[in-house]
Amino acid sequence: MSTEQPSAEGSASKIPRTERGRRTLRKLLDAAALEFGEHGFHEASITGITRRAGTALGSFYTYFNSKDEIFRALVDDLSGKVREAARNARQQDLPALETERASLIGFLRFAAEHKEIYRIIDECEFVDPASFRQHYQSTATRIRERLSEGIRKGELREGLDEAHAWAIMGMNVFLGLRYAVWDDAEAEEIAELANSILRDGIVKR
Amino acid sequence: MSTEQPSAEGSASKIPRTERGRRTLRKLLDAAALEFGEHGFHEASITGITRRAGTALGSFYTYFNSKDEIFRALVDDLSGKVREAARNARQQDLPALETERASLIGFLRFAAEHKEIYRIIDECEFVDPASFRQHYQSTATRIRERLSEGIRKGELREGLDEAHAWAIMGMNVFLGLRYAVWDDAEAEEIAELANSILRDGIVKR
Repeated sequence: MSTEQPSAEGSASKIPRTERGRRTLRKLLDAAALEFGEHGFHEASITGITRRAGTALGSFYTYFNSKDEIFRALVDDLSGKVREAARNARQQDLPALETERASLIGFLRFAAEHKEIYRIIDECEFVDPASFRQHYQSTATRIRERLSEGIRKGELREGLDEAHAWAIMGMNVFLGLRYAVWDDAEAEEIAELANSILRDGIVKR
Repeated sequence: MSTEQPSAEGSASKIPRTERGRRTLRKLLDAAALEFGEHGFHEASITGITRRAGTALGSFYTYFNSKDEIFRALVDDLSGKVREAARNARQQDLPALETERASLIGFLRFAAEHKEIYRIIDECEFVDPASFRQHYQSTATRIRERLSEGIRKGELREGLDEAHAWAIMGMNVFLGLRYAVWDDAEAEEIAELANSILRDGIVKR
């Protein structure tokens, strides 16, 4: 868990110190993604998580005090995975527009393989509003940084700011919901289409 | 309630036939928006709704059989209001890009005045997934129709389709969350910014 989040502080002392501990924590988080994704927060149970993880109930309490706590840790974990999926999909020093395309392809592929992510992040709005905001604010901040870099390199127009980052994030999130979660569309095709809006707008020239 | 929705069928026989009945139903739906918006679906109660509406419990059961049923009716009602807010904000025969701007201004103003709408529509993903899909699919369909009209008029480029509509909807929804619900930004300013992406993209010319 990231140390910048308030939710991380409560369990900061529980970071596993052994490789075996890290594997157990990983199993618990992966199991939690399936359990919360399938049943939702209210119906999900700690025993459902440990059963899926194949761990003893005691292992759960080594790392988490409650269902709320593992849910928050899971949102933070998924948020980090989304960040990594977008980052790993792009090479260094791509042109600004290609960076957006590659990031979106990475995100769409991740969402297609982890269809439960929308349900979990969206439910977070109710279970833990602070983590919900944190997820989107940090995502928007990363997009904004990419836009600023594109402006510095002279590739993107001046004046792109936080709101443009939120607009691009909104495009990406909704394209992911419609074409990666509800459907299994080709990620490249969807990303090209979003890229065409950023490149040319929608007006006839 | 619209007849195109499966959720409407169960209560189709309960459409009020008198003006007084219509007022009572309106009061119940407005009260439900506040009750669900404040407490969320699980904590909200029918007595909480009738107390806010100032109606007898019997009036509730004249129109709805359950908390689930009024929740679905509320989502359908809000979905219709969003549609109207966007439609009323634009005049006839605006250029295609101005139609998008005016629709977004209408939506942002509506969201600013009904900040509970996001919470309710988002919770619908869990309480009634079919209505959740229906809300976004019908919104995307309306945007797509506007894009097609713009292409027909020769103002928008060829090839804009369903996915472009989802991209624009995503921009609008996230700008609304960030700048109308979390913040109280000037609707015109946010709409101009979204419009600038549709007009010019983000690339430096």
